[in-house]
Amino acid sequence: MNLENKYPGKDISVDDIINKFPLAAKKHENHKTKFNIAGVEFGGETIPIFAGPNMVESQELILDVAKNVKERGAHFLRGGAFKPLTFPYRSAKYNETREQGLQWLADAKREIGIPIITEVMEERYIDAVAEVSDILQIGTRNMQNFPFLTACAKTGKPIMLKRHYGASLRDWLGAAEYILIEGNEKLILCERGVSVPHTHRATSRFLMDLQVIPAAQEISHLPIVVDPSHATFWRPWVAPMALAGIASGADGVMLEVHPDPQNAAVDPLQPIDYEEFGDLMNRMDSVAKASYKRKVL
Amino acid sequence: MNLENKYPGKDISVDDIINKFPLAAKKHENHKTKFNIAGVEFGGETIPIFAGPNMVESQELILDVAKNVKERGAHFLRGGAFKPLTFPYRSAKYNETREQGLQWLADAKREIGIPIITEVMEERYIDAVAEVSDILQIGTRNMQNFPFLTACAKTGKPIMLKRHYGASLRDWLGAAEYILIEGNEKLILCERGVSVPHTHRATSRFLMDLQVIPAAQEISHLPIVVDPSHATFWRPWVAPMALAGIASGADGVMLEVHPDPQNAAVDPLQPIDYEEFGDLMNRMDSVAKASYKRKVL
Amino acid sequence: MNLENKYPGKDISVDDIINKFPLAAKKHENHKTKFNIAGVEFGGETIPIFAGPNMVESQELILDVAKNVKERGAHFLRGGAFKPLTFPYRSAKYNETREQGLQWLADAKREIGIPIITEVMEERYIDAVAEVSDILQIGTRNMQNFPFLTACAKTGKPIMLKRHYGASLRDWLGAAEYILIEGNEKLILCERGVSVPHTHRATSRFLMDLQVIPAAQEISHLPIVVDPSHATFWRPWVAPMALAGIASGADGVMLEVHPDPQNAAVDPLQPIDYEEFGDLMNRMDSVAKASYKRKVL
Amino acid sequence: MNLENKYPGKDISVDDIINKFPLAAKKHENHKTKFNIAGVEFGGETIPIFAGPNMVESQELILDVAKNVKERGAHFLRGGAFKPLTFPYRSAKYNETREQGLQWLADAKREIGIPIITEVMEERYIDAVAEVSDILQIGTRNMQNFPFLTACAKTGKPIMLKRHYGASLRDWLGAAEYILIEGNEKLILCERGVSVPHTHRATSRFLMDLQVIPAAQEISHLPIVVDPSHATFWRPWVAPMALAGIASGADGVMLEVHPDPQNAAVDPLQPIDYEEFGDLMNRMDSVAKASYKRKVL
Repeated sequence: MNLENKYPGKDISVDDIINKFPLAAKKHENHKTKFNIAGVEFGGETIPIFAGPNMVESQELILDVAKNVKERGAHFLRGGAFKPLTFPYRSAKYNETREQGLQWLADAKREIGIPIITEVMEERYIDAVAEVSDILQIGTRNMQNFPFLTACAKTGKPIMLKRHYGASLRDWLGAAEYILIEGNEKLILCERGVSVPHTHRATSRFLMDLQVIPAAQEISHLPIVVDPSHATFWRPWVAPMALAGIASGADGVMLEVHPDPQNAAVDPLQPIDYEEFGDLMNRMDSVAKASYKRKVL
Repeated sequence: MNLENKYPGKDISVDDIINKFPLAAKKHENHKTKFNIAGVEFGGETIPIFAGPNMVESQELILDVAKNVKERGAHFLRGGAFKPLTFPYRSAKYNETREQGLQWLADAKREIGIPIITEVMEERYIDAVAEVSDILQIGTRNMQNFPFLTACAKTGKPIMLKRHYGASLRDWLGAAEYILIEGNEKLILCERGVSVPHTHRATSRFLMDLQVIPAAQEISHLPIVVDPSHATFWRPWVAPMALAGIASGADGVMLEVHPDPQNAAVDPLQPIDYEEFGDLMNRMDSVAKASYKRKVL
Repeated sequence: MNLENKYPGKDISVDDIINKFPLAAKKHENHKTKFNIAGVEFGGETIPIFAGPNMVESQELILDVAKNVKERGAHFLRGGAFKPLTFPYRSAKYNETREQGLQWLADAKREIGIPIITEVMEERYIDAVAEVSDILQIGTRNMQNFPFLTACAKTGKPIMLKRHYGASLRDWLGAAEYILIEGNEKLILCERGVSVPHTHRATSRFLMDLQVIPAAQEISHLPIVVDPSHATFWRPWVAPMALAGIASGADGVMLEVHPDPQNAAVDPLQPIDYEEFGDLMNRMDSVAKASYKRKVL
Repeated sequence: MNLENKYPGKDISVDDIINKFPLAAKKHENHKTKFNIAGVEFGGETIPIFAGPNMVESQELILDVAKNVKERGAHFLRGGAFKPLTFPYRSAKYNETREQGLQWLADAKREIGIPIITEVMEERYIDAVAEVSDILQIGTRNMQNFPFLTACAKTGKPIMLKRHYGASLRDWLGAAEYILIEGNEKLILCERGVSVPHTHRATSRFLMDLQVIPAAQEISHLPIVVDPSHATFWRPWVAPMALAGIASGADGVMLEVHPDPQNAAVDPLQPIDYEEFGDLMNRMDSVAKASYKRKVL
């Protein structure tokens, strides 16, 4: 047997093949990766929560959200300075704040003392995002952009890899492997909804696949997070699906939180407000204790 | 506007149309149906659990299971005396016990004191099943067998209507309406897994759709149950998906329980044993309290 | 090995199991069933076309359509006297014509001299439909209504079994087996669109699965028909998908034809008119010759 | 209204928005783009055929295939020098021939006189591929890699954009827009199979979506090609689905052709051999004439 990986210069022996690869696979039944990012443990007892607006709309907004979600127990501030679009057009309101937005995230991180997760969409912005963000978030459309995965992995920064909405678990773990093979072991998977025949609402394009949580954990040691805001696209379903995510064994939850959801710059049907977030944090914490002796707060 | 329903003799006025139909729809935001079956409340604080073997294999088995699941808090004994098959062939081992099985269920009910839910598959057996079973279970393949739904509804017995694995929520509620229009109001919906592009295992044919729980509860007042054993077809995923069902707001859980899973007559990959069932009952109870101030035990 | 089929009294030997079952399966590579219904050969050189309105709206309509589709080469007149509905409500316009409609079909058959295919939905109407219709059409929702399949099969009438929109090929052939095992060998399969993640229009609920044509023909000897009108639900797509059906190897095509499509009682977006039908017949005939040396006219 | 596109410096006026955008959309009912690539017209009377091996395995192979498919009427030689993989591992046999393979394609082009289409997977190889290939093929995994689409578009070379197997038509046209907005108008769409609940064989992962052909042509003026080899992954289904592609209105067909299919370096279940290709060319030509008065030869 004679395997070599895609990038020359990496030798793989037969022993490696038998004992080590694929890197995403569990090596024994209770194999589960734990690591620490900005003082927050992943894969451990506490289930980290990422909370914040879809878009980094303004400095005021991002500071206010950072303060409020931190007070309610969030472990990471999320928010997009870059935002992919199906068509290459966007309104002024919907415009990305880019480097400006990254600066506001950096300010919030420093002033409020909360680590950051934000999406990186293009190779030319990796350094700028990596400077501010504690985790590089790779979006659904880039899941199979292998050179981009490699470039992100080479920064050494922790990475969260969202599942493509049309990808199988095998496709997803294959993409993860492109990151792991670069020696970057701080890798988090994130389920964010898949395309299926029925999603139950005209405004809801995806179905949150919770069966993939035990399925992934059965064969992979990587922590896996759920994103019920994007998956449901509908505020009333966010809390039940967040709780269900915890109860299915998820290792983290990403939530859209906005002080004034109906006036959010994008996707105003899906964010929850501070009060609902605070309430949900308590319920997720209780469910984590009840189901897996883990916790959120 | 001039509507009339399918079955002559039922007059529907314009006021009815505006105020009453469809019968499955909520009439106000907190509208939720509660009813009592064999002393067990549905749609209320306690979340009923149906537990038992896939098939009523023998009198010994069914008595033993009845005793053991009741001791651990199950509200209903489940078990099939009739079992639909994709092809019209079955092995001796897989054979239905039919009237004999119904008798064993009746014996277990009387001796152990636990109500019964079992599937009815054909019109000619409705009376026999209705005599023993406290709830008539209608399977996925019969969801759109409208004359059969009507015949079951006319018995006046409580009914659990499983979703077809290819049906939308609208298809499902349309089928429910065929039952409700007969004046039979003790109707329970049951999600049992749907056909989607990816199910993560060769042995797993369906994905449990938990997003349908908040979706159905948003528009319908009917209680909705989940069946993680059939949905996952894989024992290790049953507990996480049962817990996730509770956390997504389900009003009941159906579980396959067998004293010796690997020797179950059918589908030996999916039942849990008594010990796992007892443990799961405690965890579901804790999750119910944590998420919705409901309970299982 | 000890198999017995669902209905007692039929003995199946080991030799049978090896050589004969499943009945729907090809026994050798070029195995293809041919049979004759009302003078029309199925599975042979000529590809039969079923044409007519969705509903048997009136005697005038059905006579006019019968005359016009026959003149243009249709082999069977189609039209529904019974029509299943998702919800048990229908408008007066949408109402079924039932026994009256069957009588009109019988009149058209006699006056115009064209055989009939129409749907039978309930066991209590089997005899009435069988008296008029040359082929019993079983709809998507009844595909897995096994006692109904058996009852239809026992009439000895030819049967067309539509695929459930959520059914796999295996599910479908399993259902076919319930008919074949009754000794009824004049069985036609019909693909009518399946539920998938993307169907490309808000008004289009299904995707026509043409890959199932070679897939079914690879393992089964049964003739297989396509129904592009129901599958696409959109007139402009009917002709390309009908032609594609022929080119993928289909053994028949079912089409909705109405003299005044936009005023059709139901589904007015999908029928084609006489002129388009006549043109399509010529094109289908040419494609049949070009692709498989078969013909339509 | 104040729109600006993603890349600064491009002004879009309200008149543009009304009359011009999206660029992929038809501007009038019979709007269809025609253009010429290497002397072959797209969107016109003749339907171009791309034929060749999955991988550019060796110089001998590629020359032999080029000669043989040209003799039988192919318009373009296809073959991959680069090949994406789900996991970052590949066997020696499966290895990409890369720059060497591009050189062999260039040799075949010059010696046999047939234009080339080959996949480009990474930005760093765009120039090398563009030097040899008459059309840049963008694969399913890169469909939403927007910076890569932009970089390919900026070369000015004709592009064929394969649909992601989980993408809607809207997603696909959105991706096309990223190319068109760069002023690159020689753009071809390619359907290559989508993920659906049922694909009928364990070896077949995708369903060829032919309904998307009339659906795309209804709203877009871009030519659209089908790839039945990748879609079916199974040789016996390639011919019927290629013919069905032509009959559904496709503007081109991509086929895997190999002199010795079962010994192809990759995916040996799907290529057809020279003889089957020659026969299929004739049948596609006849079907094109029969269905749309177009031709292949």
